[in-house]
This record gives sequence, C-alpha cells and structure tokens, in this order.
Amino acid sequence: MAEASKAVPSTPLLKDELDIVIPTIRNLDFLEMWRPFFQPYHLIIVQDGDPSRTIKVPDGFDYELYNRNDINRILGPKASCISFKDSACRCFGYMVSKKKYIYTIDDDCFVAKDPSGKEINALEQHIKNLLSPSTPFFFNTLYDPYREGTDFVRGYPFSLREGVPTAVSHGLWLNIPDYDAPTQLVKPLERNTRYVDAVLTIPKGTLFPLCGMNLAFNRELIGAAMYFGLMGDGQPIGRYDDMWAGWCTKVICDHLGWGIKTGLPYIWHSKASNPFVNLKKEYNGIYWQEELIPFFQSVSLPKDCTTVQKCYIELSKQVKAKLGKVDAYFTKLADAMLTWIEAWDELNPSGKSEELPNGPANAKAK
Amino acid sequence: MAEASKAVPSTPLLKDELDIVIPTIRNLDFLEMWRPFFQPYHLIIVQDGDPSRTIKVPDGFDYELYNRNDINRILGPKASCISFKDSACRCFGYMVSKKKYIYTIDDDCFVAKDPSGKEINALEQHIKNLLSPSTPFFFNTLYDPYREGTDFVRGYPFSLREGVPTAVSHGLWLNIPDYDAPTQLVKPLERNTRYVDAVLTIPKGTLFPLCGMNLAFNRELIGAAMYFGLMGDGQPIGRYDDMWAGWCTKVICDHLGWGIKTGLPYIWHSKASNPFVNLKKEYNGIYWQEELIPFFQSVSLPKDCTTVQKCYIELSKQVKAKLGKVDAYFTKLADAMLTWIEAWDELNPSGKSEELPNGPANAKAK
Repeated sequence: MAEASKAVPSTPLLKDELDIVIPTIRNLDFLEMWRPFFQPYHLIIVQDGDPSRTIKVPDGFDYELYNRNDINRILGPKASCISFKDSACRCFGYMVSKKKYIYTIDDDCFVAKDPSGKEINALEQHIKNLLSPSTPFFFNTLYDPYREGTDFVRGYPFSLREGVPTAVSHGLWLNIPDYDAPTQLVKPLERNTRYVDAVLTIPKGTLFPLCGMNLAFNRELIGAAMYFGLMGDGQPIGRYDDMWAGWCTKVICDHLGWGIKTGLPYIWHSKASNPFVNLKKEYNGIYWQEELIPFFQSVSLPKDCTTVQKCYIELSKQVKAKLGKVDAYFTKLADAMLTWIEAWDELNPSGKSEELPNGPANAKAK
Repeated sequence: MAEASKAVPSTPLLKDELDIVIPTIRNLDFLEMWRPFFQPYHLIIVQDGDPSRTIKVPDGFDYELYNRNDINRILGPKASCISFKDSACRCFGYMVSKKKYIYTIDDDCFVAKDPSGKEINALEQHIKNLLSPSTPFFFNTLYDPYREGTDFVRGYPFSLREGVPTAVSHGLWLNIPDYDAPTQLVKPLERNTRYVDAVLTIPKGTLFPLCGMNLAFNRELIGAAMYFGLMGDGQPIGRYDDMWAGWCTKVICDHLGWGIKTGLPYIWHSKASNPFVNLKKEYNGIYWQEELIPFFQSVSLPKDCTTVQKCYIELSKQVKAKLGKVDAYFTKLADAMLTWIEAWDELNPSGKSEELPNGPANAKAK
C-alpha cells in the first residue's frame, strides 16, 4: 500500500472535477490494481441486483454507493427509467454526480500495458482526450492532430484547425474484444493483442458502436443524453444499453457541433461473458438494430433544439413515432427517455441548458 | 543483386494486374531499395520537365517511360489536361496503363521498417487493402474488421458486414510528415516516428486529404476520376494535385458505394521539400481550399450518374458553375476535367462504364 501510494501522481488531472462510475454486483477487488490511478478520485458505485448484499470496497477509496433501494428512494416513480439487473444501471451514477466529467469502467477491466511494458493510466489518457478538441468535420490522416509530435497534414483547411469541444472519449480493450454473442460463439479464442497507438475523432454523420466498458465524457456537455435505456430485468433486450447511449449522443453531438473520440486508452478486459447468456439478451437487439441504424442515420434535429435536453426530448418523439412500429418496446423506451430527462433536471436543477450551463434562470426545457 | 533477387517473393500478388506509376525528374536510384518488392511488377515512369534529359533506371526493372514529347504525341491537343513541371503529371501513367490496379510512389520515398525492425512491403499491404472490402457506412472501433485476429465489434449491424468494394488505399509516411508550407515553416524539425498499426475506411460523407506519395487504387473502378488536375507550369497553384483527386474520388466513391481506406502501409519519406518554394505553390490553394471543402461537402450527384465517367462529367459541371466564381482557374480546370475524360475514354475504349467494366457495346458516356 505504501508502494501504491507512492505511485499516485502528485497532481492528478481534474481531481475535483471527475467522478468514476462503476456498476457492480460484487466486491470491488479489481480496484486494487487501479489504486495508483483512481485513488485520488471520487467513486460512484451503482450496486445492481440484490440490495441487501454488501459490496466490499478496498480501503482508502473515497466513494458513495447506491443500491436499488437508494435509486427508488431518490427518484421515486421516476426510478422506472433506471434498468435493474443490467449494467445499464450505471447511468444513475451519471445523474447523481455533481462533477463536470465522468469516467465509467467495468469491474472486469484491469490495467493494460503498452508495447513498452508500461502500465497504462487509462484515466489520464481519457482526460487528455476530453481536454483537447475534436475534429469531426474533416479527417486528419495522421490521426489526432493535437497530440505531441503531430499536426494537421497538407490539405487540411485552416479554418477547421481549432476543432470543437470534445464530449466523449471512447477507450478500447486488449485481450477480450467486445464481440456480440454470435461472433463470440464463432471465435471463442480470438483475443485482441494489437495496440493501435492512435486517437481519432469519429467524423460527423458517422455512427459507431459505443462500448460502456471504458468510457469517459463531459457530463456538463452531454451527460443528459448519456442514458443507457431500458435493459435487463423485465425488458426484452440486454447488452444494447451502451449502444443506445452511443447512437443518441452521436446524433446530438453532430447536431450541436461537439466531437466524439475513439482509440486510446486501452484497458485489459479480463474475461468474456457467457455467449449463450449473451445471445438470449441480444437476439432482439441484433434484429432491431437493422432498423435502428437507418433510423439514427436519418435523424434530423430541428434548429431550435439548442440544448441537449431539447435534443433528447425531440429524439424521444422520433423514437416513438418511427421505432414504435418496430416493437412496442420502443414506445416504452421513448417514454423512459422523457422520464430520464425529468429526473436529470430534477437532480441537476442548475444545468438544464448547455447554452447556459450554470444558468439558474433558465426555464425547464420541456 | 543475387541477394536482392533471392528476396523476391515466389508469387507476388497481382503481378500481372498492377502497374507502378512513378513521376520523376531524376535517375531512379531509389528503386534499388525497392527491388525485392517492385522488381516483379511493370513500371510506368512519367518523366517530368526537360524531355531531352535521360532518366537512368536501375537494371532488371521492366518499365515503359513517357516524357512530355510522348504525352503530346499520344494525346495531341488533349495533352493540355496533363500538368507539366509538377508531379501531377503522374496521372498520365494511370491513363496509359492497361492494368486493373495502380500503385504510385514518389522517388524520395524509401522502404520503412515496422516496430519490430522488419522492412515493410508497402505494395503488398496496399494490395491486401484493395482486395478486402471497405466499411464506409458504419465505423468499426477495432479498425479493419477483415484483418487477421479481429472482427466487427458488438453493435455493428450484420447487414453491413459484407462491406463494399475498395477503390483506394491511402498509405502513410514515417519520418517527414506531409505538412503544408506554413506548418513546415513553423515545425521544421517535426518528424513522424509513430507507427499506427491500423487500416480504416474513411466513412461515407467524410472528406480527407489524399496524398499521392504512397497511393494505390483500383484503376478499373475509380481510375477515370483519379485526375490530378492542372498544376505547376502556367498554373496559379501547385501541391493540390493529389488533394483535388482525393476530393473528387471521395465524393464519387460515396455516390457509387465504394470504399477508401487509409493507414498502413508506411513508407519512409526521406526529405522535406523546400517550404519557401512550397508556400509559393500553395498560397492560392490554402485560400481556395476554404471554398473547395464546403463545395465538395455539399456536392450531390444525381441518380443517373451510374458510371465514374458520368459522375466526373457532372462534377466538372458543378465545379464550373460553383467554383468558377471563386477564380477563373476553376473554369479552366472544369474544362480540363472534361478533356481528361475524353482522353481517358480514347485510350481505354473498352472500359467506359463501371456498370459494364469490359463491355465493348457500351456507348460512350458523354
């Protein structure tokens, strides 16, 4: 422990401006390995499943923990929008945080090593990604132009070189790749061993599969849209929580002119989940996704949607109108999206509009 | 030489289906280093500048060489569309080739090494890129899903996993990065030392800066649009030849449903060109590019543009109508684009339509 404490950087970046959100059903022994990097930060633990179980958190971490009883107590009837028995419950942590930035990680993710053998401080890389601009309007062939030792290449318009604010930093995984159940079944032994030393902005207009395993975002900018949907207990679908959040946030970031980055940092994903269980959770999603992607590709938000809340409410209307026909589930989900925004605004009364991030005079965006 | 010959792979990929196009003004000593990789292939050398000069090509290479006199003789008055005193002249080589694939490389580019110290067979990697599909409609966070050891991640729609034909493979550069003159002046010592082990598809709807230094493409698919414009001698602009080709081919590939990849392979770019000379060539381009990018971002090709030729002719009309106002140069360029297509069809009489790649009965697409 003395050893580990020594490794804590003297001035961790954004120490008082970032919460680490961890959804879990078990003791958080995995934090031991992260101690040098996470200990300076505040943790928000969202306990899934049986609330009577006690989750052990290693000594020395500063945390708050919410179980299902807490969620029900805090949100009342609005707790219906928070999933149960699914890691989608993590988004409750985004809602109760009071910080500007969120990092969320799964409890089966460990510290990865870069090709030189050095342990990767994933959080530090995410913070770098979030604090430097994004370039969604034009692709830079040498990847992140703001990184030390690189720049914009010939032919990159100078007017676009300032970039735009970064809303999301999506990190990757060594060892167990984030495959769907069919791919897991077909390639049970495939491991990701390739360290790609790059961060890049997902271009405007392009959708991608956002994985919630190793994810950071600017809560003040995009938090209100980072809703992980209705999954798990009582729902006809699982394992699409992060995908849903990714597609919603991407179209909203595109609309509001913010960037989403993917690439570094890597974490070490230790074990594959059961592909048979996953298949049961996913089969509807795999089918519905063929309708969801064209829907999100064609979503157009009107100009008067100038805040994340307004965008999200508009999106929920379009979900109901267009995806309600695919399955009744999406009508329920559209309603839950509205409930989520109401709950968000209730818990975050001073942050209802991104136009006025701290404007208490700002009217409720309904 | 015996040593080098031994290193030649026994069955080089696409040996009889690919030409290597090299624009040059000097002896091609740089080919010595490429001998193990290039010797099995046919070279098309486009000699720029003084046609009376003799270009020395190392022994053992199979090549044809065209100087300005040859270009004038072959194309007659249509030779006006081929630039002089600018590496843009290389596109003449694309036109006279009879092969399905083209690789083009600058004569100041050498064999790079991967992080393990192994010499990179750039051509082989380009061929792999061209022969595997592209994924322009949805971003895969683990990059090229067709590469050994990787796949599509969770959330990637199954209906999109077949991909689409790859038209272009854009390779990168270690050592001297491809910077514009202002960046060269500001960062004279910056070198690219980072090997990013990835190939990715540039998403549909996203423009990028295509560099002609290390570039391969499917000539049968996109060759007729790979025109490097009017640059150099007698023109108000240089160093935008490849950019122009990149923006034109990108909007046409997007329209026709083909992919463009960037990333691996790297070559070793040996020396930076003179930034003062470059600034003189570029200053108009740097200014005009601010109009060009919005133009190309908003180009829409009608549905009846079903062949590259039809797309390119339509594009030239839009260039004349919309960019002619920016500068009279673009009116001239729009005309040269038409001349290029006429010359292309004249030299490639059986390949006028991508709908019927080898259809002799296909009417001229004018």
